[in-house]
Parts: sequence; structure tokens; C-alpha cells
Amino acid sequence: MDRIKNQIIYLLSSGEKSVWEIIDFQDASLPEFFEKLNEMKKEGIVKMEGNVVYLTDKMKKAVYEYPFNELKCMECEGTGYRIMMNIKKKYEKILKDRPKPIEEYDQGYIGIDVALRKLAFLIERGDIFGEIFILGDDDLFSISLALTFLPKKIVVVDIDERIIDFINKTADEYGLRVEAFLQDLQKENEEFLRKFDVFVTDPVETLPGIKLFLSRGISSLKGIGSSGYFGLSTLEASRKKWFEIQKMINEMGFVITDIKRQFQVYPDDGKNFFEYQEKLPIVKKLRSKSNYNWYKSSLYRIEAVKEPNPLIRGDFVLGEKLYRDEESWATPI
Amino acid sequence: MDRIKNQIIYLLSSGEKSVWEIIDFQDASLPEFFEKLNEMKKEGIVKMEGNVVYLTDKMKKAVYEYPFNELKCMECEGTGYRIMMNIKKKYEKILKDRPKPIEEYDQGYIGIDVALRKLAFLIERGDIFGEIFILGDDDLFSISLALTFLPKKIVVVDIDERIIDFINKTADEYGLRVEAFLQDLQKENEEFLRKFDVFVTDPVETLPGIKLFLSRGISSLKGIGSSGYFGLSTLEASRKKWFEIQKMINEMGFVITDIKRQFQVYPDDGKNFFEYQEKLPIVKKLRSKSNYNWYKSSLYRIEAVKEPNPLIRGDFVLGEKLYRDEESWATPI
Repeated sequence: MDRIKNQIIYLLSSGEKSVWEIIDFQDASLPEFFEKLNEMKKEGIVKMEGNVVYLTDKMKKAVYEYPFNELKCMECEGTGYRIMMNIKKKYEKILKDRPKPIEEYDQGYIGIDVALRKLAFLIERGDIFGEIFILGDDDLFSISLALTFLPKKIVVVDIDERIIDFINKTADEYGLRVEAFLQDLQKENEEFLRKFDVFVTDPVETLPGIKLFLSRGISSLKGIGSSGYFGLSTLEASRKKWFEIQKMINEMGFVITDIKRQFQVYPDDGKNFFEYQEKLPIVKKLRSKSNYNWYKSSLYRIEAVKEPNPLIRGDFVLGEKLYRDEESWATPI
Repeated sequence: MDRIKNQIIYLLSSGEKSVWEIIDFQDASLPEFFEKLNEMKKEGIVKMEGNVVYLTDKMKKAVYEYPFNELKCMECEGTGYRIMMNIKKKYEKILKDRPKPIEEYDQGYIGIDVALRKLAFLIERGDIFGEIFILGDDDLFSISLALTFLPKKIVVVDIDERIIDFINKTADEYGLRVEAFLQDLQKENEEFLRKFDVFVTDPVETLPGIKLFLSRGISSLKGIGSSGYFGLSTLEASRKKWFEIQKMINEMGFVITDIKRQFQVYPDDGKNFFEYQEKLPIVKKLRSKSNYNWYKSSLYRIEAVKEPNPLIRGDFVLGEKLYRDEESWATPI
């Protein structure tokens, strides 16, 4: 049985779909998906015209239209969490003038509703009440945290001066307890070692990149019981990469407490990283422009059961390898 | 910062709660929770009268009522999945005469809505189309799978003859593609080795028990890409136990693709294992009868990235140790 092909056939059984909707629905990484799609064309299972993919007549006869079209809860977009509307109003207003993602740092932000659902999850876990460290915050998640006035302290580090300025300016204007500092994560900053209860990050998805981001996050934590949150896609991280990452997490003394599939959505809202999509390998390969919110990532939560043991300590310069590997088909070249 | 205490204070900030609702809301295991609760009483943070726990006046002044009472989506009970109503009707009718859980095998079943949401998740993953092996099925989940008519094959093994008879009788009556066989998982059955695409189980929660159940599940799988589903609570499995289990999963050649917190609810519906609750250690310790659906477990999905390597092969007799360890405070003695 080929699970991924079955997923695609299942989705198409109710009618033609945009190739970007298929990418979103299925579980393989982008290179694996591209191969499956080509196989399915050759095998006479599907046809593709422009953006659109559909089952061949032969195939249509072999499957019936599955009666379970909508599996996900529409109310919460399949996340299980509500949005706090009082926070949303302020948050939305503040984020109106957010800095646009730039290619140089592989930026791309999660949607406002997504950030608020992530916030609900942190509150539920009791993680909101501690000292929180955010490594890279083009999501501007720190501001949603600060708007609850519950965290004892929030510190953000980012490589992009525009983000730092935006957060510090907002903190001043709204009286929020959040401070942002300029930092390239390739350098270690001793000031932030062993100081926090919780870290939050959205790492690049190469193995060395993940190792670096997680090590910096983990180095910032106080000890046993401290926790970390990060996003990881299936599109740019295959199951094998996930396996290596989970081994790493275990070695660093952490248990995975949650993996929330497709919790984080990076909306194509006219400002996000889809604006330079002609530079993404997957767009070039498919010769098809994105017309669907297809880039999502799973939200991991991890917790220290031993003294945190970061695999990288001290400065560690990666350069290009930080951003790109053979699976990074949604990263601009 | 004490995360668990913060979770409890957060919950109680909106008013007094049943101790069972608190158990459900917080993340610690039962022995850890019991200790925290006693500490909080001594520290003058909470008081307990009968079933009910509330903040002391002193504490009430220190916190304000947090404005984010409802964090979970009510529509889907925080699971993110819908219920297929056409399947539910038949499933509910069939399950009316289900065998009652018995102490001897530490039985206890998930609710009907829960089973249907789990089914939606299996469909979405494409796992529904394969050959499916179920190890222990007092949940009668196999019947919900079979009612979709999508799986190629479903095989159930269970230690309880009543379950076997019920499933086979139902299969006959409704023309369902499911077969059930009597088997004690302590014995290996060669007939079921390397035959399936997917396994589903709800293991006992002792470390040797989990190792046995997962090994049997994993032995039944065909190879790379095959997947497994199982439940694991936080109440009878501490973070340290989770850590050991995740190491095991990694050693067996599997990646964890999903951990869905509190996805599985074991309803106190007048028939489930709460009927003999006076035999559960936690009920004795708290001197308080359950009045809330507090027993839940996380749903794990794992996937083989290497040739499956079960840690236990051949017969393996555990006896009492299968069911009980120092964390099994919701298992009858």
C-alpha cells in the first residue's frame, strides 16, 4: 500500500484540486511529493493541467467518492484551540504595520489567529507565567504573549534590526513587558544562558540549522521542567530528518510532550514570503503559482527531564548550510 | 516557577473546582499531583473540602481572575476533528450491548465520539486503506474502522473472549470485514508477523507493559512506512516514563509523527471502569469519588523509517508487572 498516493486519491475522489491544496493535504516532503506526483501521472492515475490535478477517467471508475469530505473541525481550523478576541483586536491593530519578510533571512510569519491559538496553548500549559525567551520573532509572537500581561519576563533575540525596532517601539507605546535584542544565533550570548523557563523558536529546517536553533534555545533554559516550543514542517523535513531531530531532542535530555500537526499556518496574505515565490524551488519545478495556504508546520513542545545538554555550545558559524539542504524546496534561492 | 502549581492556580482563579476537574486540567502524573496538592494545602494556597478545591482568601487577593476561561474549542472538544454522523448512528446502535470492562484485564474504553474522531484522523493520514492490526480492542474501535468499508483487512487480537465473540458476531450480522482472535500478548503469534500496514493499540502503562505492547505491534508491520497508533496518559505515565518510551520508539526504528494531547477520553458513563473506582489508588488517597471525565490519554502516531526492530521477540511472560508499577494509581488493586 502506498499511503501518500492513497491520500492524494482520497482527496481527488471528490473532484479536481489545485496542486497546492494537494501539497497541503498529503504528508510527504516536497521532493518526495514531486516524485509521487510524477509517478501517478505516468501510471495513469492523475492528470495535471496548469495548477489543477484530477483523477483520470480510468481511476475515477476504480474509486467511489468517499463520503467523509470534511474531517477537520472548521471552528478551530483543526487546532483544537479558541481565539481570545479581546487580545486579537489589539494584536491585529499593532501588527498592521509589521515589517515585511525578507529573503535574506528566510523569513515568513504565522497568521494572527495561529499566534493566538499558540498563545492559548501556552496559557493552558502554565508556561505563560514564567520567563520566556524567543529566538527569532518575525512572527511577532512575543507581542501576543505580552498583551496578556501574564509572563514575568519576555526577551526576544533576532538577526533583523527591523524586528527588534518594531518590538521595542511597540513595547514602549503599549507599556508591554518585552525587550528585543539584535543577535545572530551563530554567536553565543552568555547573558542569556540558563535564565529562562520557556523558549519559543521557529527554526530553519536544515539539520545543522535545527541543531543550532534548538541548542541555543535549550542553553537558555534553567533546568529540569523547563520547556521549549518550535515549529517543524513535513514539507521541508522528511520523516528521516524528523527521526534525527527526535534523537537529538532525546540526547539533549528532553521529552516531546506534544506534536500538533499543521498547527502553524503561514498565510498567503499579500505580504508573507509567497511574495517572492518565483524564487522557491517547488514553484519552479511545478511551473505553477501558489493559490492556497499550503505552507504549514507542526508545533512541537518539549520538556527537560534531565539537566539540559545542548549539542552545540559556543560560536558556530554555518553560513549557507544554515538555510539550505536537498529538502529546502520552499526556501528562496 | 512551578508550572503545575501555576496551572492549578490559573484554573481555580475563576472559582472552586472538583478535584477531578483539576486532575484533568493539570499535566503531572497522579503521584506528582497528589504531592503538589498536599504542598499547596500546607503553603496556604488552596483548601479542600470533600470533592471541592478552592483558593484561600490570601491567595485570591494575589491573583486576579484570568480573562481567558475557555481555551479549548468546544465544537470538537479540543481534538480538531469532526464526527461522521452517518457512521455514528450505526456504531452507537451496535455498541449498545458492548461487554462491560472487567478489572482482571485493566479494561476501560474510549467514548464513541472519541473513536470516531480517531477514525477521521486515520482516514486523513491515508492509513485507513491498508491492512490494520488491533492489539486489544475493548474500545471496539475495529468496528468503527470496518463501518467505513475502506480498510483492506482488519484483524483484532484480545485476551478477553467476550470481546472476540462480540466483534465476530457483529461482523457476521453487519457484513463487516473484521476478524477477531483470542490471544494473550505475552505469547507471540507467528501468524501475525510482518503482515500489516498499521497497528492500533491502547497499552497498559507500565514500562515493561508498553515495551511488550509496542513490540508486538511493531512486529506485525510490513516495514518502512508502516505506522502505529497508541494511547498514553500523563496521569499514569510521568515525563520520565515518556522519555524512556520515546527512546524505545527511536531504537525500534520509528519516528513520532503526532502526539495529540488528551485526544482519548474514557467517559464515566455508568458502564466504564469507574464502576469499580473504589479499587483505584487515587480514589482511596483522595477519599473522594470521581464526578468528572478525568481519565484521558494522548494519542501517538509513529511511523517506521527503518526496518522495524521490536525490542521484545518471542514469548515474554510478565504477570503482575504487566499492569502495575509505582505510577499506576488509576489501575485497580
